[in-house]
Amino acid sequence: MRLSNTFVKTQKQISAEEKSINAQLLIRWWFISQLMAWVYTYLPMWWRVFKKIENIIREEMDAVWWEEIFMPSLQPKENWETTWRWETVDVLFRFTSYYTKRELALWSTHEEIVSPLLKNYVVSYKDLPKYVYQIQNKFRDETRAKSWILRAREFFMKDLYSFHKTQEDLDEYYAKVTTAYENIFKRAWIWEQTYYTYASWGTFSKYSHEFQTITEAWEDLIYVCDKCRVAVNKEIIEDLNWCCPECGNNELREIKAVETGNIFKLWTKFSAPFDLSYVDESNQKKPVIMWCYGIGLWRLMWTVVEVHHDEKWIVWPENIAPYKYVVIWIGQAWQSKAEEIYNYLKDKWVEVVIDDRDESTWFKFKDADLIGYPYQIVVWDKTLANWENMVELVKRANWEKTLIDYKSL
Amino acid sequence: MRLSNTFVKTQKQISAEEKSINAQLLIRWWFISQLMAWVYTYLPMWWRVFKKIENIIREEMDAVWWEEIFMPSLQPKENWETTWRWETVDVLFRFTSYYTKRELALWSTHEEIVSPLLKNYVVSYKDLPKYVYQIQNKFRDETRAKSWILRAREFFMKDLYSFHKTQEDLDEYYAKVTTAYENIFKRAWIWEQTYYTYASWGTFSKYSHEFQTITEAWEDLIYVCDKCRVAVNKEIIEDLNWCCPECGNNELREIKAVETGNIFKLWTKFSAPFDLSYVDESNQKKPVIMWCYGIGLWRLMWTVVEVHHDEKWIVWPENIAPYKYVVIWIGQAWQSKAEEIYNYLKDKWVEVVIDDRDESTWFKFKDADLIGYPYQIVVWDKTLANWENMVELVKRANWEKTLIDYKSL
Repeated sequence: MRLSNTFVKTQKQISAEEKSINAQLLIRWWFISQLMAWVYTYLPMWWRVFKKIENIIREEMDAVWWEEIFMPSLQPKENWETTWRWETVDVLFRFTSYYTKRELALWSTHEEIVSPLLKNYVVSYKDLPKYVYQIQNKFRDETRAKSWILRAREFFMKDLYSFHKTQEDLDEYYAKVTTAYENIFKRAWIWEQTYYTYASWGTFSKYSHEFQTITEAWEDLIYVCDKCRVAVNKEIIEDLNWCCPECGNNELREIKAVETGNIFKLWTKFSAPFDLSYVDESNQKKPVIMWCYGIGLWRLMWTVVEVHHDEKWIVWPENIAPYKYVVIWIGQAWQSKAEEIYNYLKDKWVEVVIDDRDESTWFKFKDADLIGYPYQIVVWDKTLANWENMVELVKRANWEKTLIDYKSL
Repeated sequence: MRLSNTFVKTQKQISAEEKSINAQLLIRWWFISQLMAWVYTYLPMWWRVFKKIENIIREEMDAVWWEEIFMPSLQPKENWETTWRWETVDVLFRFTSYYTKRELALWSTHEEIVSPLLKNYVVSYKDLPKYVYQIQNKFRDETRAKSWILRAREFFMKDLYSFHKTQEDLDEYYAKVTTAYENIFKRAWIWEQTYYTYASWGTFSKYSHEFQTITEAWEDLIYVCDKCRVAVNKEIIEDLNWCCPECGNNELREIKAVETGNIFKLWTKFSAPFDLSYVDESNQKKPVIMWCYGIGLWRLMWTVVEVHHDEKWIVWPENIAPYKYVVIWIGQAWQSKAEEIYNYLKDKWVEVVIDDRDESTWFKFKDADLIGYPYQIVVWDKTLANWENMVELVKRANWEKTLIDYKSL
């Protein structure tokens, strides 16, 4: 990609409405644009990172047979009345169609939609278990007035729903989800900072599970057991007498974190009101057991930035960076060589940009440092004057410089 | 994919609310599920087709440097007041945030969002032209009470916006869009039935352009000039004295069609109210010229089904089919051979399903015919008893049967 082609530029001024320093950085340097409080446009570089993370999640889901679907965001009031949540869920966007007078809602999860959907297809025990997921932009009339972009009003989420006959079947499946989540966090390069965490979710069961990732900008306090490599959310640490629920260890480390994934045991809370049931082997009608599992892509991306930055800002892991290389030349004489290198790499389908903007070299390096390309390819006298095709490769993570023949990249 | 794994089944009964025969077929056979009138869930097979068409569009856009972004669906009232459209656009879903009391809207295009977005980045003539697009689920409080699923209340659309200094620059770009659209329709296998069509769009200019595709289930009447291979929408045929606007030919064919793509000349309608302007070479401030270009993915998919069906229903073009092959065995003895073939193809990353459901062979063939896999691989006595690895390959498009070694697939 040619940077002269992109419509995005480094922003000098940021709307006074944007109070989060983290959001300010993402807005100033190329990634997002604020439409209104907690609602953002994904700019081309951010969208490329999003597509890569989306693809990782899709691959990990598909690898173990989960089926991808897409359910409507527009949801009818009746479905919400069936579960008694129309009046009680306080973050629903509610409205009425002008023409049909039908009352509608937008929200962030789809239990009220997926339960009646599966009811069309599940009849007998032979039809279970089933697993469906979607990756979708979601809406939430957010109540918290924190100046903190994790809580967006519109955001992307992967929501997965599983449907089971028995507790045993569910437990088996649950282990698979945990492994898939671990793979996702590994491939997003945040696993080292991420803990499987016990948390409260009193409505349906004693505990729920979350994945919490240690970050400087935080939302939750967790207590880490270094023996078991699990954690406990502050919400329930007193109930557990400040001990690890797995080994009883009472030397836990308090640390700041954000939730990057969660698992809710829904049991029959949604299947019962929608009469989502099956006939078992002895011809008895029974309610289907449901669980749901979420990963917020918006907050996952944000967490990657939080984990992978230094004093100059983002250092993208190579596999999710918007582009792997940026080509910058020093001295007008080297522009054509830079173009040659860019074209060579592009033709090999390497993810590369050339900074061919009409800007100073200093300006280009500043942007490159901040945008966080994993490698900067520097084309200049120092190398090329002596050795043909030899460029300086700067690794953004540690500023290590090596001389390398660009044809070996 | 194993069909025993999918949660979807052929539906015997369809909601009385669904009056469209076309939608009934898509619901009965695996593709969509109705949540409420004109609002549908995309089931796994339909979603796979969607992703393939989305990918075609993305490739054709990216190949000529258009930048992909993602703008919020939640839009603030102020932006709509700026263009005086808050009160006049009658298909906006309007609502108020319970917490912030901010008035919001959902709609199907993003002129009110993309214009102020570009204003952040466009300053001088050096910043133009620019092109951005997105592929997004869209909302429209639809007024038409036609029992016709083309007009969904929630649907996917590709919307592309271009920003220019001059008419000449715009004309050059316009030719590129036309070529890209032609490529998209070719790759979706509907180009043969699709015409570049003159239509009215009185607000901003004399004519707009559409791409209209000839189908049995129709929305518009068009008049085709076979000499120029263009058409005229009925809306403006009288204004043109029933003649081709390109060659004057007055022997036009009247035919039924649906709109599959469109181009609107926005000129300065949106740039002016948002003060989206640039400083030209002689230091004069001028408004940016905008055009927009749309392709509705929901209606494009629907059109593909309309064009590619026979008396038994869908015959998917190979490159957009949900899967290329279905493996079905006749006679229990051949199940393990069928599994061997399925595994062989799957390991080669061929897109294949095996119908391993506990159903009759007759039932499986009926579903296979209707789901429209391009090829059915039949494993049975007739072939395998005599020749090892020899299967019957049935081409769905013409029912042609050939004997083939499955390892050559």
